[in-house]
Amino acid sequence: MVSIAVLGCGRIGRMHAANIAAHPRAELAAVYDVHTPSCEEVASAYGAPAAADAEQIFADAKVDAVLVATVTETHADYIEMAVAAGKPVLCEKPIDLSLARVNRCAEAIEGANTPIQLGFNRRFDPGHRAARDAMQAGEIGDLHQVIITSRDPELPPRSYLEGAGGLLRDMTIHDFDLARYMLGEEPVEVFAIAQALIDPQLGAELDEVDTAMIIMRTASGKQCHINNSRTAVYGYDQRIELLGSKGMLLSDNRTPHSMRRFTGAATEIAQPYLYFFIERYHEAFMAEIAAFVECIEQGTPPQVGFEDGRRALILAEAAYRSLAEERLVRVDEIA
Amino acid sequence: MVSIAVLGCGRIGRMHAANIAAHPRAELAAVYDVHTPSCEEVASAYGAPAAADAEQIFADAKVDAVLVATVTETHADYIEMAVAAGKPVLCEKPIDLSLARVNRCAEAIEGANTPIQLGFNRRFDPGHRAARDAMQAGEIGDLHQVIITSRDPELPPRSYLEGAGGLLRDMTIHDFDLARYMLGEEPVEVFAIAQALIDPQLGAELDEVDTAMIIMRTASGKQCHINNSRTAVYGYDQRIELLGSKGMLLSDNRTPHSMRRFTGAATEIAQPYLYFFIERYHEAFMAEIAAFVECIEQGTPPQVGFEDGRRALILAEAAYRSLAEERLVRVDEIA
Amino acid sequence: MVSIAVLGCGRIGRMHAANIAAHPRAELAAVYDVHTPSCEEVASAYGAPAAADAEQIFADAKVDAVLVATVTETHADYIEMAVAAGKPVLCEKPIDLSLARVNRCAEAIEGANTPIQLGFNRRFDPGHRAARDAMQAGEIGDLHQVIITSRDPELPPRSYLEGAGGLLRDMTIHDFDLARYMLGEEPVEVFAIAQALIDPQLGAELDEVDTAMIIMRTASGKQCHINNSRTAVYGYDQRIELLGSKGMLLSDNRTPHSMRRFTGAATEIAQPYLYFFIERYHEAFMAEIAAFVECIEQGTPPQVGFEDGRRALILAEAAYRSLAEERLVRVDEIA
Amino acid sequence: MVSIAVLGCGRIGRMHAANIAAHPRAELAAVYDVHTPSCEEVASAYGAPAAADAEQIFADAKVDAVLVATVTETHADYIEMAVAAGKPVLCEKPIDLSLARVNRCAEAIEGANTPIQLGFNRRFDPGHRAARDAMQAGEIGDLHQVIITSRDPELPPRSYLEGAGGLLRDMTIHDFDLARYMLGEEPVEVFAIAQALIDPQLGAELDEVDTAMIIMRTASGKQCHINNSRTAVYGYDQRIELLGSKGMLLSDNRTPHSMRRFTGAATEIAQPYLYFFIERYHEAFMAEIAAFVECIEQGTPPQVGFEDGRRALILAEAAYRSLAEERLVRVDEIA
Repeated sequence: MVSIAVLGCGRIGRMHAANIAAHPRAELAAVYDVHTPSCEEVASAYGAPAAADAEQIFADAKVDAVLVATVTETHADYIEMAVAAGKPVLCEKPIDLSLARVNRCAEAIEGANTPIQLGFNRRFDPGHRAARDAMQAGEIGDLHQVIITSRDPELPPRSYLEGAGGLLRDMTIHDFDLARYMLGEEPVEVFAIAQALIDPQLGAELDEVDTAMIIMRTASGKQCHINNSRTAVYGYDQRIELLGSKGMLLSDNRTPHSMRRFTGAATEIAQPYLYFFIERYHEAFMAEIAAFVECIEQGTPPQVGFEDGRRALILAEAAYRSLAEERLVRVDEIA
Repeated sequence: MVSIAVLGCGRIGRMHAANIAAHPRAELAAVYDVHTPSCEEVASAYGAPAAADAEQIFADAKVDAVLVATVTETHADYIEMAVAAGKPVLCEKPIDLSLARVNRCAEAIEGANTPIQLGFNRRFDPGHRAARDAMQAGEIGDLHQVIITSRDPELPPRSYLEGAGGLLRDMTIHDFDLARYMLGEEPVEVFAIAQALIDPQLGAELDEVDTAMIIMRTASGKQCHINNSRTAVYGYDQRIELLGSKGMLLSDNRTPHSMRRFTGAATEIAQPYLYFFIERYHEAFMAEIAAFVECIEQGTPPQVGFEDGRRALILAEAAYRSLAEERLVRVDEIA
Repeated sequence: MVSIAVLGCGRIGRMHAANIAAHPRAELAAVYDVHTPSCEEVASAYGAPAAADAEQIFADAKVDAVLVATVTETHADYIEMAVAAGKPVLCEKPIDLSLARVNRCAEAIEGANTPIQLGFNRRFDPGHRAARDAMQAGEIGDLHQVIITSRDPELPPRSYLEGAGGLLRDMTIHDFDLARYMLGEEPVEVFAIAQALIDPQLGAELDEVDTAMIIMRTASGKQCHINNSRTAVYGYDQRIELLGSKGMLLSDNRTPHSMRRFTGAATEIAQPYLYFFIERYHEAFMAEIAAFVECIEQGTPPQVGFEDGRRALILAEAAYRSLAEERLVRVDEIA
Repeated sequence: MVSIAVLGCGRIGRMHAANIAAHPRAELAAVYDVHTPSCEEVASAYGAPAAADAEQIFADAKVDAVLVATVTETHADYIEMAVAAGKPVLCEKPIDLSLARVNRCAEAIEGANTPIQLGFNRRFDPGHRAARDAMQAGEIGDLHQVIITSRDPELPPRSYLEGAGGLLRDMTIHDFDLARYMLGEEPVEVFAIAQALIDPQLGAELDEVDTAMIIMRTASGKQCHINNSRTAVYGYDQRIELLGSKGMLLSDNRTPHSMRRFTGAATEIAQPYLYFFIERYHEAFMAEIAAFVECIEQGTPPQVGFEDGRRALILAEAAYRSLAEERLVRVDEIA
């Protein structure tokens, strides 16, 4: 059994705790949250000890590995502490909102071989992964275009947006990672536009946007489009399309079940798509934990690593520069 | 050019006249209807002469062939007249509501080699035909089950029902023909149930039914299910499913276009299905005329012949006996 | 916490054990199987004691309830023992292959108010349930037709078939139950045909069939069709269609994920359907356990009871008589 | 009857001649092509006179209107001649490959009120139009994003590409028009990337591209993405997606029929999409002619006018400048 401690008992930490508890070869070693009642509730729900502080967890010899689901500004510190303690770490995205901090963290952990897995859960989605596998098996010949549609069901609360670091660092970061995963080579140029169309106040008051379109290009000329919106009333819209010289692959949305209605006004009426990431990517989150357990057990490198987190953030920074300067930005201007 | 005259200028005759006029190698020779204004309107719309009576058409040397779209009770007479005149005939279904009359007609035309094509238009539907072609090409191995769903969009007027000859002879007759077409061998046993569920008055006043389920079996054990309803509010429901040892083929419904809606309440919302046979089977009716023209031009036998019309009626009679006696009826009890 | 013991550690018992262990308010009290290694393996996998015999389980005060997943011929005995011990029981279908034995069991437990839930898992499927809920909410007006398509992915081993009691008692029993669940009133007449089309040897050697079609009718005239096959190479085919005066509801099949392929030969190519009942009805099995736990906790009657199991078997018996006598059989001829 | 002459008897001119001949209130007045055999063949096929030259057609009092389907470099001349002759004209896109020539044409015809309809056939597609109608009816609230997928089935011959004027002027021009049609306001900024990925020789030898991605933005911030490819092996891929604050509308692809295959390897296998524009947009081309006839009969302005053709070309020019300068180009830099 691999004993994994969870730092952070919010919505995502709690979900990870449940998934660890449900894994046949993992167990929940301990949980910690600055908010003691949350910590105790999750501890009690899954029969794991509530740690008094994070240090206690990193010092505990019975803790084999750590999952970090705390607020973003603590991620890099915890990664460094995990590496110092020699404990494999699965850290939620992003590593940090500041590329400088990410780069310092990279220096701090340089040379260490403690596994660091980044929480880009979507790579583990069965549909997305099947698309990538089919592409890599040559089913669509040479890849030419990647189209990523990624829309949240509704605008998060203002308080969340204030600390989230901006749409491109908070939400699109997943799509930047998926783009890299699907393209199979690094995007070298980025262009972006973005507006506050859903809630124009966001722009005026927070300098934030809620609707974006991005184009990227790799060195060999592969093209990638991402479109984002903070409001898709029909459900969490998560599609990936791969166009190649010999065919197309489409990882499409999922409904909660397959019952369809046929009325005098319409046919084939399906349910709204699964509401949000916890429902839509349930299997992906389970597979993410399984991959983490496997990498610990077998000493293999994580399927998504620290550098993947850093690369996605660099693309977000390039996109922000493109927004500001209204031009195609070379990624090496940032890195 | 093949010159084809149309007998009967009602809704279906008018449609056939238009399809003949649109065929590149056919022309409308003349039209006739007992109701003179209808006759003249269709004649004028397609620039063809209005005949004074049917005899004039059969006697006209410039008429190469005749399409019969008059009321059912005249079909057998016109088939006999066409054969006597040596003019190929495309006759709407059914040949007659009385099997005895159909059999007399069969005797009357015995030995003649004038092409007689029956108006079982659905055999010419691209989807249904593709299913049959794939099956005959061995794609699904041995055929085991045929499921035919056939539902009209709404109950026809009472006046229509009074003369239509009953659900199984008027509507299911198409499905009996499709069953024979798909099974590839004759059904030898028939079982049916039927009720007036949509309009119970139909049962009380006309001894008519509006909802039916049928099971048939061939000598080699292939099974066929037909379900019928006179009211499918979501549009004309026309599906055929073929289950074989190596796969399944499904000829599914068609919408007028492919625009789908996604709302807060539902996703993938499609249009109601094409309303009724003229819209749904438009391509099939065109192909039916094309097949008739080809059989005249090339001297090949019609793709759907007189005996197909007689066989479908025998199945309807067997189904009516099954309704009456609540048992599986052998088709050779009827024939 | 509700402590549930599992009798029977075969494929289904093991699945139930896992589902009980995963339920937040249930725990696995003990397991038992006549085959000791299986019993010990499941016991060890889920950290529950392995009982020496079934009696030990029924006598154990710490066991709140029992799940019976043993061979069919023991079901009625265990139900009687559970009732005698006052322990709620969730028993896999069928109660017994003999209606006489089922009726004796019914007498033996008459008057007892120990909850007995029958393992008709499909009632708990989210899609099937959503269809029924929508129908009961009046969305499709009056129900006229129910079409159940139920096909296994492949023929089970000969050894299984020898003891399974025949297609209609073993496989169709689920569809008979779903028919009752959807029709909302009892079928009063049954007609069936069946053949050994997939493996004709089944007929010759075991007097068994592998392909069937059934029609049923309720007192008010509602019609139901069931079609079964032991081999659907494209995956476990589980569809329910409800046609009403104001619309149609269709609970359709499920694929493992939503990735589709588009090639030079075809488009919208989806995965084979989920292979078999454990995958397809995973959510249903979880919901079935949850319903059992809830009925124990709250003292409410089970959602599927003993009489439902008996009724489904009566329909199977009526269908067998219809096969033998090639006629519509009244259900009250059996009961 | 409206008498319409067709200039140009290539593939598209011939199709238009057939559609005019099939229209109930239009007739083919005459046809002309520089290539006499083509001209005579089309004349003979539809029973219309073959004109000796274009001048003869413009001078013919019996010609009510003209359809121009000749090579692009003659379009502007013929538009001017039609206006001079006072004959309504339906001209294939583009007006000209040179914006300067288009502007001179605009000056030449300024003030004339002869109807000039541009051949942007896709606006008449039932699915695309239903999407726009639903959006305009407020079904999706405020429009935020338009996504246009437009991919040809295969690379045209080298000879065609040499004279076509470049991907963005020849193929994307339709998408620029659809973008304007759907956005409901003018795009004011354009960004584009493009490569020769399908056939790299195109870039080296013709300075041509075959794969492109474009982003546009309107003054109010609405976003539009277009993706193009010259090779979609699965058929002509034509999709339009409209995302609004209250929902999404998707005009999806069409298959020739609705037969689907289910095998041991896959399910729901559909046909390749309709091969190319003549098949896919058949109904749109018919509706385009009908709109032209209606505008002549009723004196209403054309649904797609000269300025629409000029505007689409301006967007293409802006996109080419964006390609060259790798930046977001303001449309008013071009106009």
